[in-house]
Amino acid sequence: MGFWGIEVKPGKTYPYHSDNVEGKLHVTQATLGLGSSSAERCILQCHVGHKSPIFLCSLLPDKNETCPLSLEFQSDDLVAFSVIGPRSIHLSGYFVANEGDGVLDDYDS
Amino acid sequence: MGFWGIEVKPGKTYPYHSDNVEGKLHVTQATLGLGSSSAERCILQCHVGHKSPIFLCSLLPDKNETCPLSLEFQSDDLVAFSVIGPRSIHLSGYFVANEGDGVLDDYDS
Amino acid sequence: MGFWGIEVKPGKTYPYHSDNVEGKLHVTQATLGLGSSSAERCILQCHVGHKSPIFLCSLLPDKNETCPLSLEFQSDDLVAFSVIGPRSIHLSGYFVANEGDGVLDDYDS
Amino acid sequence: MGFWGIEVKPGKTYPYHSDNVEGKLHVTQATLGLGSSSAERCILQCHVGHKSPIFLCSLLPDKNETCPLSLEFQSDDLVAFSVIGPRSIHLSGYFVANEGDGVLDDYDS
Amino acid sequence: MGFWGIEVKPGKTYPYHSDNVEGKLHVTQATLGLGSSSAERCILQCHVGHKSPIFLCSLLPDKNETCPLSLEFQSDDLVAFSVIGPRSIHLSGYFVANEGDGVLDDYDS
Repeated sequence: MGFWGIEVKPGKTYPYHSDNVEGKLHVTQATLGLGSSSAERCILQCHVGHKSPIFLCSLLPDKNETCPLSLEFQSDDLVAFSVIGPRSIHLSGYFVANEGDGVLDDYDS
Repeated sequence: MGFWGIEVKPGKTYPYHSDNVEGKLHVTQATLGLGSSSAERCILQCHVGHKSPIFLCSLLPDKNETCPLSLEFQSDDLVAFSVIGPRSIHLSGYFVANEGDGVLDDYDS
Repeated sequence: MGFWGIEVKPGKTYPYHSDNVEGKLHVTQATLGLGSSSAERCILQCHVGHKSPIFLCSLLPDKNETCPLSLEFQSDDLVAFSVIGPRSIHLSGYFVANEGDGVLDDYDS
Repeated sequence: MGFWGIEVKPGKTYPYHSDNVEGKLHVTQATLGLGSSSAERCILQCHVGHKSPIFLCSLLPDKNETCPLSLEFQSDDLVAFSVIGPRSIHLSGYFVANEGDGVLDDYDS
Repeated sequence: MGFWGIEVKPGKTYPYHSDNVEGKLHVTQATLGLGSSSAERCILQCHVGHKSPIFLCSLLPDKNETCPLSLEFQSDDLVAFSVIGPRSIHLSGYFVANEGDGVLDDYDS
């Protein structure tokens, strides 16, 4: 199913949704966007329901502007991403549709 | 089963527990929380029984505030996390319930 | 199928193509090329159709000149890579041909 | 089988041994210990027989004090770890016992 | 099959060869060797036939002296490693022999 990416812009919350395709999203990298020349850190956070958000990474302009992640989300996970700080964070990874889950189902048919 | 995250705050020990769901927890990232403006390092450590704790990562404010991890815990692992230093460390990852373990059990039924 | 690598040079867009072999490309590392002595950041971006490109990583001369990635592309993914900045970015990884997909096909024959 | 960790202290060599449990050890992170305030690098090395040791990572106090690894060791691997430098390096990861190897053995019984 | 490591010294090219054992080599880490006190970067490159070499990583003395890699090589891959710069780069990882490939062959016997 291939490449997946979004730009998480400041001041907005981005719910994860998988376009009605069952499968697993692998989020594997976060990279600071262009914009403000401030040296202020940008933090990517993940929201699950009404719990306190969890910080997924903290990127520092001109020092560490990218970092690997290794997160997996199911199609029915109710999560959302947002940024603390003045710049966007680009998330990238790949989506694997659920045919793999059916490997042994072949025996049933 | 999707996203998992906790904030490990200074001065407290957080035992891992899996809410009675059998499965495997993948802890894949550690990120410094907000707080003290001190430049002091924050170290995440893992406690197993009465052994000396093992350092899992060391985060440096304004230098390296996030790092990938690749740890796996079973539901019955008796471990606990704590922080040395003035700030929280956010841990994130994902939990995979044990249906995968039952792949070949289908043959028994 | 082994090693895969390309040099993504500034000012050009590099479509991914898999030489008519079905399989999966794993892109696992990005490294800054030689060239300009400028301290300007170089950003690797991925283009999918007419959507805004997604930043895959941001490399900083003399600070962070390499970073791990973990991207997977299918043979029929229509993506392209380009660089923002004065230097090349070398991408490396490995290609796995599709024989693995046929593991359970043995039962059909 | 869960969490695994050791503290590799300067001036000592630590052979890997798996407590007579067949399986695979995944060593996934190295983190600098506390101690000397010197800025001197600490290098983790792996010894195999009488060959020259191989450097596994190099940690820099106050700059890069932790790094991911991705090493796998079998129960019968004859390796040992040591440190060059004034501080300990904590290694962490997880051990997977060999039941996985027996997946298809179920057919024999 | 366990641990694998080589020291890639400046001024020499190191072809990969697998000692006639069929399998897959996972190269997972690169670490700067000791030596020259110069601050000059050291670049690890991979040669495939007569193509231009691809940079696999770039290590900076006293800044970033180690980095994770995630490369896989087959026994019959014709690749070679070399270094640009004054110091060695130590490569480490592990080799997995091809018994895994034969998992489903058990059905044939």
